[in-house]
Amino acid sequence: MRASRFFISTLKEAPSDAEIVSHQLMMRAGMIKRLGSGIYTYMPMGLKIIRKVEAIVREEMNQSGAIELLMPLIQPAELWQETGRWDKMGAELLRVKDRHGREFAFQPTAEEVITDVVRSEIKSYRQLPLNFYHIQTKFRDERRPRFGLMRGREFTMKDAYSFDRDLAGMQASYQIMYDAYVRIFNRFGLKFRAVAADNGAIGGTGSHEFHVIASTGEDALVYCPSSDYAANMEAAEALPVNPSRPAATQALSKPATPGATKCEQVAQQLGLPLAQTVKTLALTVEQEGGGKAYFMLLLRGDHELNEIKVGKVPGLSAHRFSTEQEILDVYGTVPGYLGPINTKVPVTVVADRSVANMADFVCGANEAGYHYAGANWGRDCAEPAIVADLRNVVEGDASPDGQGVLAIERGIEVGHVFQLGTAYSEAMKATFLDENGKPAPLQMGCYGIGITRILGAAIEQNYDDKGIIWPTAIAPFELVLCPMGMDRSEAVRQATETLYAEAVAAGIDVILDDRGHRPGQMFADWELIGVPHRVVIGDRGLKEGNLEYQGRRDAEASAVPVAEALAFIKGKLAR
Amino acid sequence: MRASRFFISTLKEAPSDAEIVSHQLMMRAGMIKRLGSGIYTYMPMGLKIIRKVEAIVREEMNQSGAIELLMPLIQPAELWQETGRWDKMGAELLRVKDRHGREFAFQPTAEEVITDVVRSEIKSYRQLPLNFYHIQTKFRDERRPRFGLMRGREFTMKDAYSFDRDLAGMQASYQIMYDAYVRIFNRFGLKFRAVAADNGAIGGTGSHEFHVIASTGEDALVYCPSSDYAANMEAAEALPVNPSRPAATQALSKPATPGATKCEQVAQQLGLPLAQTVKTLALTVEQEGGGKAYFMLLLRGDHELNEIKVGKVPGLSAHRFSTEQEILDVYGTVPGYLGPINTKVPVTVVADRSVANMADFVCGANEAGYHYAGANWGRDCAEPAIVADLRNVVEGDASPDGQGVLAIERGIEVGHVFQLGTAYSEAMKATFLDENGKPAPLQMGCYGIGITRILGAAIEQNYDDKGIIWPTAIAPFELVLCPMGMDRSEAVRQATETLYAEAVAAGIDVILDDRGHRPGQMFADWELIGVPHRVVIGDRGLKEGNLEYQGRRDAEASAVPVAEALAFIKGKLAR
Repeated sequence: MRASRFFISTLKEAPSDAEIVSHQLMMRAGMIKRLGSGIYTYMPMGLKIIRKVEAIVREEMNQSGAIELLMPLIQPAELWQETGRWDKMGAELLRVKDRHGREFAFQPTAEEVITDVVRSEIKSYRQLPLNFYHIQTKFRDERRPRFGLMRGREFTMKDAYSFDRDLAGMQASYQIMYDAYVRIFNRFGLKFRAVAADNGAIGGTGSHEFHVIASTGEDALVYCPSSDYAANMEAAEALPVNPSRPAATQALSKPATPGATKCEQVAQQLGLPLAQTVKTLALTVEQEGGGKAYFMLLLRGDHELNEIKVGKVPGLSAHRFSTEQEILDVYGTVPGYLGPINTKVPVTVVADRSVANMADFVCGANEAGYHYAGANWGRDCAEPAIVADLRNVVEGDASPDGQGVLAIERGIEVGHVFQLGTAYSEAMKATFLDENGKPAPLQMGCYGIGITRILGAAIEQNYDDKGIIWPTAIAPFELVLCPMGMDRSEAVRQATETLYAEAVAAGIDVILDDRGHRPGQMFADWELIGVPHRVVIGDRGLKEGNLEYQGRRDAEASAVPVAEALAFIKGKLAR
Repeated sequence: MRASRFFISTLKEAPSDAEIVSHQLMMRAGMIKRLGSGIYTYMPMGLKIIRKVEAIVREEMNQSGAIELLMPLIQPAELWQETGRWDKMGAELLRVKDRHGREFAFQPTAEEVITDVVRSEIKSYRQLPLNFYHIQTKFRDERRPRFGLMRGREFTMKDAYSFDRDLAGMQASYQIMYDAYVRIFNRFGLKFRAVAADNGAIGGTGSHEFHVIASTGEDALVYCPSSDYAANMEAAEALPVNPSRPAATQALSKPATPGATKCEQVAQQLGLPLAQTVKTLALTVEQEGGGKAYFMLLLRGDHELNEIKVGKVPGLSAHRFSTEQEILDVYGTVPGYLGPINTKVPVTVVADRSVANMADFVCGANEAGYHYAGANWGRDCAEPAIVADLRNVVEGDASPDGQGVLAIERGIEVGHVFQLGTAYSEAMKATFLDENGKPAPLQMGCYGIGITRILGAAIEQNYDDKGIIWPTAIAPFELVLCPMGMDRSEAVRQATETLYAEAVAAGIDVILDDRGHRPGQMFADWELIGVPHRVVIGDRGLKEGNLEYQGRRDAEASAVPVAEALAFIKGKLAR
């Protein structure tokens, strides 16, 4: 490609609404252009990258036996009503009415449509397993779109759906997709991590997220450096800090803690470590027949609540935080001084595993301005009714697999594989005839990759103060040729055209910058755009028979003899 | 590709709502699956064809200097309001409201968005010319979607937009696209015709439609077999049947023509040829300051009115047919007996060119039950105020270029190139600075190809009673290998696998039917699907060292020695 035949448009400054680096750099490099909130035109430079990402995904999907089709964007509401998602999805689902007033969804995913296709196509277990995928535009009407392609409303996703006759088959299909994802992210040349994830509302039997590692990532990834344990924060299991409860050593006391409604304040007033305090969260559960049940969650003062885990505690699938009035009625005091000792009415105590193994702890006294210190389970109050994992893990926690301690890093979610089971097939009566001629619901899995999001994530992981540093596999161009004064020097022109022709013939995705810009602007453009390999062709070097090569991460250029240039570049690209 | 790794699903019968051959065959061949009215899932077999069509279009667009980008599907109403199309498009434009109540259009085309992109990117004439295109989903909320992919609501289109500094530049860009389209349709292997088209409401300076020739086509294409004149029916110029008016030979008479309100009835009652009669159409034009003007259109009795042409007659851009009351007021009689002689009040007479050159004609007498015969211009009534081309051409009309007579064939419109001029750029204030540093509006062209419609059109042109006959370039597979009893015969298995490996290595898009079906079903499937080249591998042939080749249009198979099979197939594909 000659730059004069392409469209290159760079900016010195990013627009003010670009909050994060990847968004700023993509705008400055002319890869995307804002059309509306969360809606972008993919400019030629951006589209070229997207196509490379898509090509890698497509190759590996095909390689793993998935079959490509293309499902429509505009999908009848009736299908979404069959699974209940028409209501469940809320305002995020973009709804459309046609000229006859019939309702449709602009697809955010395609579980309903693919299940509809499959239920009419698949009659027998002999036709299984099957895995269909498409690479298609999605729309999610985010409340607050931002971060460019990272949290846009219109975006491109690869979504695949597997269909199996039984759980074992589905898990095998799932593993095939998991392995394909590992190959895909390796081919992208990105540092990534697959982590176990929570299955969420849909249920199912397993789920993993694929994250691009980046310090700016929204998600905390928990992993064990000495084993292969990895999970996202929602799903990472927190073991008790103390494997067992030490014996009590202190008597119960009730020091005044005026105005200390936070554990930090209490610890400071009492001169005790925060890890010795226990915080209390009051929950209410509305009973089905009317009436309310009250629960008290106990966490160590320095630990963070994990809402997902709370929802899994028996009896707490539908809970809410208690109101101030409820707290007064139940505990006889105001928030900030609650605790498990002497509540006004009985409350179900749910202690985090770490709290259950504490001795001599500090907790609210159910009396404004007072806490208990030296509190101990069994002696000062009943043993907790429920002991559960309620908290987020922290660095240094023991790994749940017993292989070491946990570390945490930040990531950007770009892929998700999900064992759906029969949730959709049962709702939509998608069955097949098994070996005994009996109808059985299809076992499903679904597998997504955020195609356009990959671009943002790759940049968040790979940039410097000059601009983007693309991994070669998904760079807009692999190589840029920068001639110095091609119009003035016949030697430069000849050497440039020769190398360009050789590179094209060798199948290298090369761009020749024939725009006639000055070196400074030319270099700044390509460093901003992030082409990983650059060759400068100038009279000075040519006099000594050399070209100048510089990798995007190299501090300096190195001279390469003209005759060896192509082989040299090939060597760089092969790495 | 092995058939066992692909998804093949054929039907004996087409669903009852499939009215035309291409729709029926695509449904039966498992290429598309209906999701809703005018909305289809592209199944793997169909998508594979679409991708081949897209690839050819993309290659030729790139080759001609157009640059690919991708504009969003969901576009803000504000842009559409700038050009007035938000209102003009009516119910065909699918409108969407987001969670905040803001209005958007699901794009049916992208003139507004590309003009918005370009007005912010292009500052100077030095950046021109430019041509951007995308291959993107479109939605048009057709009142009556039908014919499968031929008149769907959701479909795929390639739309390109050129930007130039002046008319000459725009016309050069237009010619480049025209030439690219000719290459594209030639590469598809389809019989097609480019015809001059009417520019329609948008104005502009020129326009051509590209039609796939098919007897089932909706459009009539006018062409001159002895020259390169070609136009669609709307735009084809009709010359007068008589180059000049003959002298009058008859006296005016007023025969009774009771109940004869149609020219056919009059001609029959009077024993005259239909071509001797003139029919009168009464039009009303509401005047701007109030009041009405009346026009009378005169056509030869055997000719058809061309509404587009009427709209171009001076004073008739906004006309309607007169009401019965208006006709009574103006002509003093009822419809069916109108004519240019002795109207009650003065009427502007607009005669078709052929009528203006008639002598001794028959027309209504403005009196119920009577016509005039032997009527002549000048003698019996004033010369027509306006002589214009008002009619559709018919076979045998003189070609407007004077090179012969016109023929008519049927076509399916699959492409349209259009000289837009400054209609959009002026409405959207898309200007550039010219050589004198003065702002000037961009000269635009737009260029569409109906990607998914190509499939339907190709089938309407190429099928037989067994199924589809794809041109090789856009066939789902170029070659199918049909082994006879691959699981029973080691010789068959070996010969098949060898040829398959050779074909794959040679870059042939081959499918190996390893499904284990019986020959009859296997052959019927591939004839229905329309793969253009088939090789059968069986024990009988192998004993004599032969395979059996049959082209999809061949009446019989021919034996090909195993050793020569690949070269033989390559030869067939090269044609």
